[in-house]
Amino acid sequence: MNFFQNIQPTEYQFYKPKQLVLGKTMEEHLRLSVCFWHTFCWQGTDMFGKSVFERPWKTKEEKIRAGFEFIEKLSLKYYTFHDVDVADEGPLEEVVGLMAEEMEKRQIELLWGTANLTGHPRYLAGAATNPDPYVFASAVHQVKETLDATHQLNGHNYVLWGGREGYETHLNTDMAQELNQLGRFLSLLADYKHKIGFKGTLLIEPKPHEPTKHQYDFDVANVYAFLQKHGLEKEYKVNIECNHATLSGHTLPHEVAYAIAHDLFGSIDANQGDPLLGWDTDQFPSDINTYTQTLYLILLNGGFQSGGFNLDAKVRRQSLDLEDLFYGHVLGIETIAKALLNAAHLIETGHLQEIVRKRYQGWETDFGKQIMSGKMSFETISNYVKTNKINPKPVSGRQEYIELYLNRINAEHEDVALI
Amino acid sequence: MNFFQNIQPTEYQFYKPKQLVLGKTMEEHLRLSVCFWHTFCWQGTDMFGKSVFERPWKTKEEKIRAGFEFIEKLSLKYYTFHDVDVADEGPLEEVVGLMAEEMEKRQIELLWGTANLTGHPRYLAGAATNPDPYVFASAVHQVKETLDATHQLNGHNYVLWGGREGYETHLNTDMAQELNQLGRFLSLLADYKHKIGFKGTLLIEPKPHEPTKHQYDFDVANVYAFLQKHGLEKEYKVNIECNHATLSGHTLPHEVAYAIAHDLFGSIDANQGDPLLGWDTDQFPSDINTYTQTLYLILLNGGFQSGGFNLDAKVRRQSLDLEDLFYGHVLGIETIAKALLNAAHLIETGHLQEIVRKRYQGWETDFGKQIMSGKMSFETISNYVKTNKINPKPVSGRQEYIELYLNRINAEHEDVALI
Amino acid sequence: MNFFQNIQPTEYQFYKPKQLVLGKTMEEHLRLSVCFWHTFCWQGTDMFGKSVFERPWKTKEEKIRAGFEFIEKLSLKYYTFHDVDVADEGPLEEVVGLMAEEMEKRQIELLWGTANLTGHPRYLAGAATNPDPYVFASAVHQVKETLDATHQLNGHNYVLWGGREGYETHLNTDMAQELNQLGRFLSLLADYKHKIGFKGTLLIEPKPHEPTKHQYDFDVANVYAFLQKHGLEKEYKVNIECNHATLSGHTLPHEVAYAIAHDLFGSIDANQGDPLLGWDTDQFPSDINTYTQTLYLILLNGGFQSGGFNLDAKVRRQSLDLEDLFYGHVLGIETIAKALLNAAHLIETGHLQEIVRKRYQGWETDFGKQIMSGKMSFETISNYVKTNKINPKPVSGRQEYIELYLNRINAEHEDVALI
Amino acid sequence: MNFFQNIQPTEYQFYKPKQLVLGKTMEEHLRLSVCFWHTFCWQGTDMFGKSVFERPWKTKEEKIRAGFEFIEKLSLKYYTFHDVDVADEGPLEEVVGLMAEEMEKRQIELLWGTANLTGHPRYLAGAATNPDPYVFASAVHQVKETLDATHQLNGHNYVLWGGREGYETHLNTDMAQELNQLGRFLSLLADYKHKIGFKGTLLIEPKPHEPTKHQYDFDVANVYAFLQKHGLEKEYKVNIECNHATLSGHTLPHEVAYAIAHDLFGSIDANQGDPLLGWDTDQFPSDINTYTQTLYLILLNGGFQSGGFNLDAKVRRQSLDLEDLFYGHVLGIETIAKALLNAAHLIETGHLQEIVRKRYQGWETDFGKQIMSGKMSFETISNYVKTNKINPKPVSGRQEYIELYLNRINAEHEDVALI
Repeated sequence: MNFFQNIQPTEYQFYKPKQLVLGKTMEEHLRLSVCFWHTFCWQGTDMFGKSVFERPWKTKEEKIRAGFEFIEKLSLKYYTFHDVDVADEGPLEEVVGLMAEEMEKRQIELLWGTANLTGHPRYLAGAATNPDPYVFASAVHQVKETLDATHQLNGHNYVLWGGREGYETHLNTDMAQELNQLGRFLSLLADYKHKIGFKGTLLIEPKPHEPTKHQYDFDVANVYAFLQKHGLEKEYKVNIECNHATLSGHTLPHEVAYAIAHDLFGSIDANQGDPLLGWDTDQFPSDINTYTQTLYLILLNGGFQSGGFNLDAKVRRQSLDLEDLFYGHVLGIETIAKALLNAAHLIETGHLQEIVRKRYQGWETDFGKQIMSGKMSFETISNYVKTNKINPKPVSGRQEYIELYLNRINAEHEDVALI
Repeated sequence: MNFFQNIQPTEYQFYKPKQLVLGKTMEEHLRLSVCFWHTFCWQGTDMFGKSVFERPWKTKEEKIRAGFEFIEKLSLKYYTFHDVDVADEGPLEEVVGLMAEEMEKRQIELLWGTANLTGHPRYLAGAATNPDPYVFASAVHQVKETLDATHQLNGHNYVLWGGREGYETHLNTDMAQELNQLGRFLSLLADYKHKIGFKGTLLIEPKPHEPTKHQYDFDVANVYAFLQKHGLEKEYKVNIECNHATLSGHTLPHEVAYAIAHDLFGSIDANQGDPLLGWDTDQFPSDINTYTQTLYLILLNGGFQSGGFNLDAKVRRQSLDLEDLFYGHVLGIETIAKALLNAAHLIETGHLQEIVRKRYQGWETDFGKQIMSGKMSFETISNYVKTNKINPKPVSGRQEYIELYLNRINAEHEDVALI
Repeated sequence: MNFFQNIQPTEYQFYKPKQLVLGKTMEEHLRLSVCFWHTFCWQGTDMFGKSVFERPWKTKEEKIRAGFEFIEKLSLKYYTFHDVDVADEGPLEEVVGLMAEEMEKRQIELLWGTANLTGHPRYLAGAATNPDPYVFASAVHQVKETLDATHQLNGHNYVLWGGREGYETHLNTDMAQELNQLGRFLSLLADYKHKIGFKGTLLIEPKPHEPTKHQYDFDVANVYAFLQKHGLEKEYKVNIECNHATLSGHTLPHEVAYAIAHDLFGSIDANQGDPLLGWDTDQFPSDINTYTQTLYLILLNGGFQSGGFNLDAKVRRQSLDLEDLFYGHVLGIETIAKALLNAAHLIETGHLQEIVRKRYQGWETDFGKQIMSGKMSFETISNYVKTNKINPKPVSGRQEYIELYLNRINAEHEDVALI
Repeated sequence: MNFFQNIQPTEYQFYKPKQLVLGKTMEEHLRLSVCFWHTFCWQGTDMFGKSVFERPWKTKEEKIRAGFEFIEKLSLKYYTFHDVDVADEGPLEEVVGLMAEEMEKRQIELLWGTANLTGHPRYLAGAATNPDPYVFASAVHQVKETLDATHQLNGHNYVLWGGREGYETHLNTDMAQELNQLGRFLSLLADYKHKIGFKGTLLIEPKPHEPTKHQYDFDVANVYAFLQKHGLEKEYKVNIECNHATLSGHTLPHEVAYAIAHDLFGSIDANQGDPLLGWDTDQFPSDINTYTQTLYLILLNGGFQSGGFNLDAKVRRQSLDLEDLFYGHVLGIETIAKALLNAAHLIETGHLQEIVRKRYQGWETDFGKQIMSGKMSFETISNYVKTNKINPKPVSGRQEYIELYLNRINAEHEDVALI
């Protein structure tokens, strides 16, 4: 049975999987992935309205087959799933065989798996951070099953998003206790991963709130504080979602830059929010500029290791046709592909890197090096300033110049420095 | 010369400095402080309007005397200052003697001092995180001078707020370099503090943005991540500002609870923002409920060590009379004093603590203890769940009950549990 | 069958229905109402989690009986409903008899009815503003049925909330066409109301967004612009929801003041949002200060005509016990009752009114009156300023004084002016 | 004296003033304008930092000459000014001659003038809405002088932005009184305009807040409500600022579409805000997509009448060189020019217009027309639905398709419909 045979998706204009960019194919760079939950499970409900999508797949097996058919039709190579996306209420082991078979048949790999620890009523007050240790234990069991399946399917990563790991009011909450529970949970999980020999990366996905008012994994820095506290900073990296980044008051490039600077960068959930709306809208990426800036950072850092761009996005509720699933994904893929071309262009010209290098070149002088190496004490530096009447002049940060340059690079009309 | 002799401020109804609350005087609990910048320096300018306050103090010496006279008239015991608040453009040493004299005369202590590293053009692109090492050095010099003065005046703390330690666009920024500079700066400062024998606490004040778009000390957790990275988590604590907390997407109680849970709690900048406005409005506290919840956490943690409530607030621009300075401060002081009484009441009844204790009591059972002590592995816990068909039921978090209880405690109409 | 017989709700401390306040009973002032949707229909789902409430009422008839039993147990006199709340998928006429019977038996009145025009898939792209005229017609039919039932039940008002009257992207939208459709719809409805002799008030409820990105009834002023355009400003008033007000960048008192100033004030949906969260959290009111300020405005304006305080709030998802329904409502009722006492106190002292009167007294002079009456032209006024070298001095707005005064009134420790 | 003679700005790649687009030159379409305040007056201060720009123009005459030299060097034809921008504290008449001379010499026209009613202390509590009628009168005088000068300089428009026409707390405010004052002010101004024969358009500029907490001209719809109330909807149009639009919870295209739908569209203040920051950042436009969507609406409406794109933007504070003024403006100009080309392309293909036309075609049927013409009553329509068992099916809004199409048009890789 083919679910999409009558649909002829538009051709890619920017995404050419085998095209070489900076020495690697676009496909190898981007590692684009389709997610099961939004694309094959969501029925178009929202808080004010009922199901509006009438999908032709009626059983979980049909849903799985539809999923892989769709991914192949998009010429992509990766997917992601929650346990409940593919198994509904049943055990994961019932469907792992079918998934393995489809992966083999269509040459599709598992970017990451994850367990849904937010939907079941038992997780009402959190999973690992629940006041009830039996809920903690239930979460352990569920994550173990899902990690086992992910391992069996050769997943490249395993993701944890703590949608209910947080609290509604501190008046009924023991924050220190809850954070210690989470530390214990993640320590045990890391041990288990090593025990079974899972080679993928463990990833934590930050989000500031929604559903919970205060979520513990607020942003990448919050996660980093937590990991260091529990000695886990070598065991986990982060899966950064664009819409979560903006909800937390940051940008996607900021979160990526912070993660890279602290050796935490893992993977991207590629979507975008609406800056005027205060919830997770999970729209398909259309903002080429944001993704260009993000890819610039990723490329300068050597690209993805185990991660990739997972299209964690959903069509708008009014986009109820099967065709709309294609347009949504093509929109996202083309946005990211064009961003890759732009970012590669930026790197090839080297102009921005040169601007940054020059801006900080004072730190390459003896004076700068002595400070950074710790050879000068606070007092010594202070005396130096006083004695030499140091009076540095501010210099331009050239932001408009850079934004103009970036717009010209993006429009492919200019590939040299402006001045 | 008396600047305020013709003003008879309203009497306190809640703030009774010598009244005992939970075994300490209100004065000892709250350690209320007046800040120099908003109260004695700000002239009522905003981004769209000129100076409107016409203060009778015309020289820096008059300003200092006016400041101490005002604080004494409010029956408070602490103040805070930036170097430029009291010294204008001149050296701090010129005014330290006058400040010491006034402190002695009026029995007022220094809660904390700080250096203004945001106003001077040299700090346009940051102080410690500036691309120019000579600006870094200038900041060292300025902080050294200010810490020396703070030490001389027996300050209880020294504060660092990194208003320009951040960036406007990552395209011209080397975040890892800048954060390393900040780490170096704070390490050198900690060394210097020990060298001179300053016994006060070093405090970092988080703020998410404004003036800078992305500020590195975004919230307490960001600061904690940074301190751990640089091995400074024993050297610094945090000065939490209410308005900064809400700008970062948190609440004041959240930030205080997080700081307490990680042994970082230092002091409070007591003000409040307008939740509908996206900038730092620094209003005098009027929301008794927020401060009740905050004091509840502080009291449960044993109260302030070296910190206190610094009234980092400014009268509205239209409040241009000297009388308004008093009304603003009395508003803030009464709000915090009433909050103390409420919080003490909450603690005395013990009802909320009991609710929390019961909520987490599962972790006091053998099962809970075995998990937390690490005696059960991930696999063992998972098998236990499977074998015993563990299926925990959700329980009520009782939020509305607690909010009702809190409102009744605040109204002093109820001092026992509702049911 | 009694659903709540084993629950003994806490006694009111502030809400005394028959207590006289400014010459009317509290009950007559507040006209408190319970809503069916949040309280008896919502199952505790959210965007990330399943149903968690297991209510004992299983049929629509049981739900209706439970509703009226609950309201009586709270000693309230009003309720509100959507067609689908009480009729599920069936026709309203099937349950109107039962509702009338329960109302009679328990002496409960209908504050307002409304039709749910957001849930059914046909309203995906709007009801009156749908691109398909047959959807418009379907909405007409549904509203007619609901208004007929509301009329039959002697409803005091009929409400329209346009949850999907808006758009997602202007690129597929003809805004002028859609607004004209809405104008036509509301004109026809007003005609129909008169035809059937419904004496209640038609109310429009503003909301800026959610579920739709751009909603046409953004705030009270947007509604007023629309009503004037279509000549409907005498036919409709507004139902103002506190949480919607803050989502639109205003406060509840602002929206009420604006409505009063333009003779549009109808009714209040009493709840509150979380200022840190960007969606409609619909929490029970706990902020006494906001409601005090709101009631102050309403009392000064002579109180409600046909409207009242409808508790359009839901317990938090973790508050899953039947008892929590009581605590939520008691929290809201007590908040509003205490606010009424505070506001009455403010009015009795007359101090604030006096401050405002004095502030504007210049407009009572001949000069002020000549300007406002239009007797002086622009040029005349300008010449007057030039000739007389008019140079007015700014005066204090006394905001902190007023906030202090208000806090003291709220704490019932002060009932005279501070100075 | 030439201030910019050593600066050779980058060439335009998209802005070709004389290039024909849809039958008009780009220059005629865009009517690009430079503002005096940000570009020639602002010294780089912010709320936390001092002046950092050291401009070579030292007197007001030099500033004026520098301004016109700059505009000419950018090959632009329009400028805008506040009275205080060019006259400092002196009378406008002193500099009008110099301005007229420069305009004549360089063939530059005045897009609009405006009076600064926010900066002077007298306007602390508002201008037209001040509680003091003498402040109202002072505002009349100042606006008269500025309108006279604008008239003398053949200004195409006159703008009113009510930065302090609003309030901080409703507790000291009589909103109805203040709005009536504003109505009187604008009525008198319209009369005066006609009296002197000024042919330009009067424009009101909405902004939701900042500096005031609640500003009366919150958004275009608020302005429209106000104008209708006072019978002024034929006398005023709106000047829409992009950054103000997003601060009010709307987008620039929404505000433009609303204004067009209500015959209020006047002019654009072209800038952009930072969606993560809650204040008016006034950045140079770099977001081509937003301006493409805006120009699409404007072009479909026949283009500007008297308005234009005024670059109401400022360089970032770190961009302190004279060169940065050029880069900022070129960034903005190129963004808007590219947006014009994109929007013209969209219109030429006609594809989007066709999508919209088809979406609403039901309203062109007899059934649709009968509804809209008022020939069918509420009851008739309802009966029709009941009798004919009308059950319309939802259809796709195709948002992702349209966003993909728009991205392809913007990238100039596709000019035909996707399917």
